[in-house]
Amino acid sequence: MNYKSIGVILGWIIKIEGLFMALPVIASLIYKEPSGRYFLFCGIFAFVLGHIMSKIKPDNDAFYAREGFVAVSLGWIFLSLIGALPLYFSREIPKYVDCVFEVVSGFTTTGASICPDVEALSNCVNLWRCFTHWLGGMGVLVFVLAILPLAGGGQNLRLMKAESPGPSVSKLVPRLRTTALYLYGIYMALTVIMFILLVVAKMPVFDSLCTAIGTAGTGGYGIKGDSMGSYSPMIQNIVTLFMFLFGVNFNFYFLVLLKQVKEAFSIEEVKWYFIIYISAVLLITFNLTLTSGGFFSNLHHSFFQCASVMTTTGFATTDFDLWPQFSKMIMVGLMFIGACAGSTGGGIKVSRILMYFKTAKKELSILIHPRSVKIVKMDGKKIEHEVVRSANIFMICYIIIFAVSVLLISLENYDFTTNFTAVTATINNIGPGLSMVGPTQNFSFFSAFSKIVFIFDMLAGRLEIFPMLILFSPATWRK
Amino acid sequence: MNYKSIGVILGWIIKIEGLFMALPVIASLIYKEPSGRYFLFCGIFAFVLGHIMSKIKPDNDAFYAREGFVAVSLGWIFLSLIGALPLYFSREIPKYVDCVFEVVSGFTTTGASICPDVEALSNCVNLWRCFTHWLGGMGVLVFVLAILPLAGGGQNLRLMKAESPGPSVSKLVPRLRTTALYLYGIYMALTVIMFILLVVAKMPVFDSLCTAIGTAGTGGYGIKGDSMGSYSPMIQNIVTLFMFLFGVNFNFYFLVLLKQVKEAFSIEEVKWYFIIYISAVLLITFNLTLTSGGFFSNLHHSFFQCASVMTTTGFATTDFDLWPQFSKMIMVGLMFIGACAGSTGGGIKVSRILMYFKTAKKELSILIHPRSVKIVKMDGKKIEHEVVRSANIFMICYIIIFAVSVLLISLENYDFTTNFTAVTATINNIGPGLSMVGPTQNFSFFSAFSKIVFIFDMLAGRLEIFPMLILFSPATWRK
Repeated sequence: MNYKSIGVILGWIIKIEGLFMALPVIASLIYKEPSGRYFLFCGIFAFVLGHIMSKIKPDNDAFYAREGFVAVSLGWIFLSLIGALPLYFSREIPKYVDCVFEVVSGFTTTGASICPDVEALSNCVNLWRCFTHWLGGMGVLVFVLAILPLAGGGQNLRLMKAESPGPSVSKLVPRLRTTALYLYGIYMALTVIMFILLVVAKMPVFDSLCTAIGTAGTGGYGIKGDSMGSYSPMIQNIVTLFMFLFGVNFNFYFLVLLKQVKEAFSIEEVKWYFIIYISAVLLITFNLTLTSGGFFSNLHHSFFQCASVMTTTGFATTDFDLWPQFSKMIMVGLMFIGACAGSTGGGIKVSRILMYFKTAKKELSILIHPRSVKIVKMDGKKIEHEVVRSANIFMICYIIIFAVSVLLISLENYDFTTNFTAVTATINNIGPGLSMVGPTQNFSFFSAFSKIVFIFDMLAGRLEIFPMLILFSPATWRK
Repeated sequence: MNYKSIGVILGWIIKIEGLFMALPVIASLIYKEPSGRYFLFCGIFAFVLGHIMSKIKPDNDAFYAREGFVAVSLGWIFLSLIGALPLYFSREIPKYVDCVFEVVSGFTTTGASICPDVEALSNCVNLWRCFTHWLGGMGVLVFVLAILPLAGGGQNLRLMKAESPGPSVSKLVPRLRTTALYLYGIYMALTVIMFILLVVAKMPVFDSLCTAIGTAGTGGYGIKGDSMGSYSPMIQNIVTLFMFLFGVNFNFYFLVLLKQVKEAFSIEEVKWYFIIYISAVLLITFNLTLTSGGFFSNLHHSFFQCASVMTTTGFATTDFDLWPQFSKMIMVGLMFIGACAGSTGGGIKVSRILMYFKTAKKELSILIHPRSVKIVKMDGKKIEHEVVRSANIFMICYIIIFAVSVLLISLENYDFTTNFTAVTATINNIGPGLSMVGPTQNFSFFSAFSKIVFIFDMLAGRLEIFPMLILFSPATWRK
């Protein structure tokens, strides 16, 4: 294990995090909040520590896959441990484990909170909470790659592969750094457009900023007690639209930018993302209208909630825990499916789900006609055996982590719906679940032990399972 | 599709079922029950119909994989539709869909009942219910193979593969018919030993018979309202032991018979089956003792319930729905794991679970050391790529059927725990779940639509997913 090289990467991450703490400091100056000073101190501390670490001279260039995985998972853990410090020192969140939970929930774009009353938090803390979504959404290391002249393309691709959501990273352009820059460019542009539209729709500027960066990362931290419930329908519709847009595979926008609109719309994953979304919206609307409420009001909330849950954002305009069971089950289904690969959303990802269906269909047809030769294709190209196998192993590890987590959480003796959906909401980076972790509830009542399980699940979900497993695998640390 | 050949096989199955209806007829003569006449009529009808069908002359010998799958799935469906007739005509179960549910639950060795009061049923009906477990446990077609001189080895292996539980059928002896005879021999011998022990332990003879055949098939129909709750601890312990024994891979007994005891005990699946069982028993015992009850009483119930649920039998000595959440989650975990492949138990099977862990471990070590070459082994032999792929596709199809079933059941608006564990209990052929389908409850309150979903799940679970999917796949019926 090349500890020094990993140290350098961790150093850069911490240093950049320190720089970003300037944002809440600025907010605190505007709103004259005393909590701002803790962001200043922690920011300086992180910057100095990171700077020293980034100056380490590695003995050699050896940087293999395991170094990549360890760097990514440790990077995210350090990011969270340090990002939690100002919340702790400001005493706005009294327990350190809660601060770490809150910041991990932020960086992993989960949006599950342990705050019983977010409106009591200062603006600078709320801005930092939402800003962790924005940073974590696209990937912190992608950001490092985008701005830093790190040595060696192989190293960078490994880091990016370990951090990116979805079964495989396709290089958009030959040079990886350029890819990263393009991605952040699109990301930034969409965020700014959303911010402007929200301001035009008469959302307060601070709220617009927090909502825009929280939506961009598909995070979902609300800065109001009722999440998005009290804003105007127009504002809610803008959020609906952008939640959906940030759940689209960014290759789509890249192709649109290159004026290859036809190719963009023929991406199978995007097509199915749209089909699943619309089907869910309609089914829920009909189901809701059978029991209560007008068709159009139900349609409005259904559009919002499905986008919120499928993209794993987690904003709410209504308490879907009160919906009929059928609608709730569709929501739980969407929680697992998740958004497109190559977006900021979490979950299993539409492309993996597609792949599972396609390989199952192929296998059945081989059982029926054993001598036939079938190839599984996606977007007209053959899916490599490697990718299918990796997706299968992903599913196995995902299920194992899921089952063990539910078992550990059940030690607290809450009901099955709470335990099951709390794990669903954290491992898929959504935020709210059902029952005691429903949209109007929070995670504060869990024990520190359960919170650590959730922290692991959120990180495992965001980093797509393998990096966290590898970090804790004895084989990684063997000579 | 070679319809005529399939017709011949269906004919044999129905004919044999007709013959077996002689058993409840005999019981009705002993107990002087009027319901017996319906078994007589239906038995004669089935025998005659089956005899006529079995005389069909196929145009050709073509019998491929798809014919095998269709014959198996249709065979089980016909078996159930005809087996339900006497229950319906006797009016002891008023609705035909309920009769089919009850008989499917019997043949698939699920043991989930729609009878609110099983003690009100006549003895001949109860014997038939339990006897369907015994027949379905080892496989109806295996039985046909064991006694019939059907043409062609290839055809038989295909039928047996489609019906047998577990990832792969290993031929115990070169000739398949001999294998089937051996299996039924071991099965019969264990059943008889259990019956004798129960009688010796002073269980009434009729109860002993029903319990022995119900345990052998890992079915779990009780003939008492409280299942096994009111029998003596000695009787309960005998049942515990035999539930465990019938969940063991039958290859184990075969090797023991050949005096290869060392080889028998080195079967990895059997070892892990034992380790998982004992771990679950101890964890639950400690968890229960923390809240209430004495250690030894808890140990007794835990031994019984874990064996009952892990082997997917479903008998109960206590209402585990009242246990703390942690113990309940271990039970749900055991429900999914299930018994050994090549036993009469259901679930995903210990060998598949082992394979999933082994392939996941291999994949992680490849991620850590990309150039290393790793082979996944079971019992010292390399697991073929085919088998791993098939197990992965099994998991995908299993999850899809599971999720769609929960969604469809949720239309009835019962709570999540009920819906989730009802599907768990049927697709894994267990019987009881939690909440409204807990050990003291039954499935009668569900709508006919939900019952049909459960019927599909029970058959899909018993036949290991693929045959039922192939039966309903359009590709099967295309020219």
